[in-house]
Amino acid sequence: MLSDASEQELTQRETELAARFVEIKARGLRLNMARGKPSLEQLDLAGPMLDLPGNNNFRDAEGTDCRSYGNIDGLPEMKQFFSGILNCPTENVIIGGNSSLAMMHDSLLRAYIWGVPGGDAPWQEQGTIRFLCPSPGYDRHFKITELFGFELPPVDMTEQGPNMDQVESLASNPSVKGIWCVPRYSNPTGVTYSEDVIQRLAQMQTAPDFRIIWDNAYAEHHLVSRSTPLGDILAACNAAGHPERVLMFASTSKMSFAGGGVAAMAASNPNIADARTKIGVRTIGPDKLNQLRQLQFFRDLSGLRAHMREHARVLKPKFELVQEILRRELGGKHIARWSNPDGGYFVSLDVPDGCARQVIAVAKEAGVTLTPAGATFPHGLDPNDRNIRIAPTFPAPEEIRSAMEVLALCVELVAIRQRRAT
Amino acid sequence: MLSDASEQELTQRETELAARFVEIKARGLRLNMARGKPSLEQLDLAGPMLDLPGNNNFRDAEGTDCRSYGNIDGLPEMKQFFSGILNCPTENVIIGGNSSLAMMHDSLLRAYIWGVPGGDAPWQEQGTIRFLCPSPGYDRHFKITELFGFELPPVDMTEQGPNMDQVESLASNPSVKGIWCVPRYSNPTGVTYSEDVIQRLAQMQTAPDFRIIWDNAYAEHHLVSRSTPLGDILAACNAAGHPERVLMFASTSKMSFAGGGVAAMAASNPNIADARTKIGVRTIGPDKLNQLRQLQFFRDLSGLRAHMREHARVLKPKFELVQEILRRELGGKHIARWSNPDGGYFVSLDVPDGCARQVIAVAKEAGVTLTPAGATFPHGLDPNDRNIRIAPTFPAPEEIRSAMEVLALCVELVAIRQRRAT
Repeated sequence: MLSDASEQELTQRETELAARFVEIKARGLRLNMARGKPSLEQLDLAGPMLDLPGNNNFRDAEGTDCRSYGNIDGLPEMKQFFSGILNCPTENVIIGGNSSLAMMHDSLLRAYIWGVPGGDAPWQEQGTIRFLCPSPGYDRHFKITELFGFELPPVDMTEQGPNMDQVESLASNPSVKGIWCVPRYSNPTGVTYSEDVIQRLAQMQTAPDFRIIWDNAYAEHHLVSRSTPLGDILAACNAAGHPERVLMFASTSKMSFAGGGVAAMAASNPNIADARTKIGVRTIGPDKLNQLRQLQFFRDLSGLRAHMREHARVLKPKFELVQEILRRELGGKHIARWSNPDGGYFVSLDVPDGCARQVIAVAKEAGVTLTPAGATFPHGLDPNDRNIRIAPTFPAPEEIRSAMEVLALCVELVAIRQRRAT
Repeated sequence: MLSDASEQELTQRETELAARFVEIKARGLRLNMARGKPSLEQLDLAGPMLDLPGNNNFRDAEGTDCRSYGNIDGLPEMKQFFSGILNCPTENVIIGGNSSLAMMHDSLLRAYIWGVPGGDAPWQEQGTIRFLCPSPGYDRHFKITELFGFELPPVDMTEQGPNMDQVESLASNPSVKGIWCVPRYSNPTGVTYSEDVIQRLAQMQTAPDFRIIWDNAYAEHHLVSRSTPLGDILAACNAAGHPERVLMFASTSKMSFAGGGVAAMAASNPNIADARTKIGVRTIGPDKLNQLRQLQFFRDLSGLRAHMREHARVLKPKFELVQEILRRELGGKHIARWSNPDGGYFVSLDVPDGCARQVIAVAKEAGVTLTPAGATFPHGLDPNDRNIRIAPTFPAPEEIRSAMEVLALCVELVAIRQRRAT
C-alpha cells in the first residue's frame, strides 16, 4: 500500500517503473483508448443492413412510400420500436434524423428561444440560466450547454446516480432549468440510476420550465444477461404532478452504424406537440428510408435485443480484459478506483487527486492516447484532476491489453512521484 | 375578351360554365395539384440506390469507414459533388443531413443567437429584425422567418428576379438582415435571376450582418436542354467586397429520394468555419452512408446531369400539358397570366385581383386540390389575392389534364362572376 511504504521502498518501485516505462516507450506503441465508438466487429454485425431496403421494397407496413416527403415525426412502426426502448406510449415518440445529440441540442434551443409548455417565458428572457452537470459525465452534453452560455454547476456522481441532496438543493433555484442525465450505464461511470434517484428527480421542487434531459444512450447496451432494470421516469414525473419535466432520447447509432442510425425523443403530449410544430417548420421530414432499413433489419424489440447480445459477445471480453489488467496491476495498492460496469461504453478510472492530467500525459508519451483530462467535467475542468475515461469498445483485445498495462504503469508511476514530492 | 363583353354575353358564358361546373362536380373527381414532390416515375429512376452501398462496400474513395462516426462536414467526395452543383470551391462546402431547409433554419438561428462573422451583435440583441420575402415565393421559407418573429416585407418578383429597386431601398435599413432567394426556377414563378439582379444583390448597401439565403433547390432541374446560365453570386459578393453576404444551399432530395437525399451549404471561409464549429457541438456528424450511397449512384456531376435528363423526360410532357390546357382554355381571354418555366417544380398562375381564394375554393368543390391561396406570400396573405401555385410533377398526365380543365373553368367562372358583380 502506497501510504504505508517507506521512502526507500517508494524509490525502489519508482526506479523499477521508470525503467519499464523507458522500455515501453522504446516500443513506439500507437494505441488509442479514447474513442467511444463501436468496433469493426460490431459494425459488421449490421452488415446486411447495407443492402436494405432493396429496390422495389420502399413501403412500410402501412403502405407509405418511404422515398417521398411526409411523416414529420416518423413512421408509426419506428415510433413503436422506440416506445419499447424508451418504455413509453407510442404517441409520445418523435423520430428524428441520425443524431439524438442534435435532438437534445434543438430541444434546449427551443426552450431558450420560445420557452417550454408550462413555462412562464423563454429562457433567453430569464437572465442567467443554470444547467446541472452530474460529473464525471458526457463531454458533448456539457459542450451544448456551454455553447448556449449557461452556467454549469457540477453535481457529484454516486453509485446510484447524481447526488440528489446536491441536485435538490440546486434545482430549487428557479434559474436552474435542467439536468443532464445518462440514466443507464452512465457515461463514463457505468452507473444505472436507482429508483430512489428517479423518484427524487421526479418529485423535487424546481422551476416550472425545468427539464431533465434523459439521454438513454445505452438503453439496450448490456454486457450482462440479467441487467439492472431502469425505473420509469416518465411515469414517475406524471405521478409527481410534473408530467412535462422529462425529455427522453435514444438512438440506434450504437446498435446499427455510428452516425448511420435513427434517433428519437419521447416526452409528454404537450412537449411532443410543441416540438413537432417547430420541427415541422425546420424540415419537411426525416429520412424515412433509413427508418425502414432499421426496421427491416431489427424487425422489433426482441430482434434488437438478440442483436445487442451479439454486441455483448464482442464487447464483454474487452471489458473483462480492462478489469483483469487493472486488478492485476493496481489491485490492493489503494492508488486507484475504477468502475466495473454491466453495460455501456466506458470504464471510469479515478487516480489520486491531482494526477489525472499527468497520467494521461505520461501515457501519451508512451504511445497510449486517452480521453483528455477533465473532459468528463463541465468546461473540461476536473476540479480534483482525478478522473480518466477508458473506452475499450473499439481497440482489439491485444491493443487493450498493451494499452491498459501502460496506463496502469503510468498511474502507479505518477502516484509514487506525487507521493514522494509531498 | 372579358372587358369588352356585353352583359348579355357574360351572362350567357357564365351559364355555360356553371352548367359545365355542375357536370364536373357530379363526376366526384379527387385530383391534387398542390404537392411539390417528385412523381413515382422519378423516384423509380433512383431505384438501384435502394440496394446501395451494399454489404462490405462501406468505404469512400479515401478509405473512410462510413459506418462510424466522424467527418463532421461530410465526405470529401460529397463536398466536391456539391461544389459542382453550387459552383464554388470544395473547401467552401459543408454537407448536412437530409434537409437543406433545416440547414437554412439553423443558419438563421445561429445568426439570431450568436450573430454572424463580421456582424456587430446577435440578431436577438438588435430589436426588430426584418427579412425580405420576394413574393410569390416559397411558403416554407417564409414560415421559418415567421417562427423566429421577424417582420417580413414582401418584394415583388419580376421576370429577372426580385424587384431590385425595392430590395435596395429596403436593405439599406440596418434592421433588414437578409433575403430569401430561389435563384433558379424560382418557386413558384420559374424565374432564373438575371446577372444584373445578382450583381445588384452583391453590391447593394446593407447591414454588415445581412445574409442572402440562396436556396438553389432547382440547380439541376431543367426541362430544356439548353438552360439559362445562373450567375456566380459568391464571386459577385467577393468582387463587391461583401464576401460573407451569401449562404448557398442545395440538396439531392429532388434528385434521388424526397427526404432521403443529402443536403449541403456553401459560403465564404469565415461563414463555413463558424457554422462548422457550432454544428460540431450539435452532432457528432452526418449520415455518411447516405452520402456514400448517393455518390455511388450519381458518381459525379455528369452522372447527376444524365439522371436529371431522365427526370426531364418524365416531367416535360406534364409541364407541356399544363401550358396546352391553359392556352386552350384561357388563351387570349385576358383573364389570367401564367409562367412557362424552363425548369423547377411549379407553374405560377395569376388570376384577376381578388379572385385566387375563390378560384381555389370553387376548384376544391369540384374535387381539385390546389395549394392554399396566399401560401406563396409571407403570413399566407396575398395582398392582391391573385396568385395560384400549380404543381404538375406528381400527378399522372390524365390527372393533370382533368385538373387543369377544371382549374381553367373555375378561373373563367370566378372572373366573370367578379366582373358582373362590379
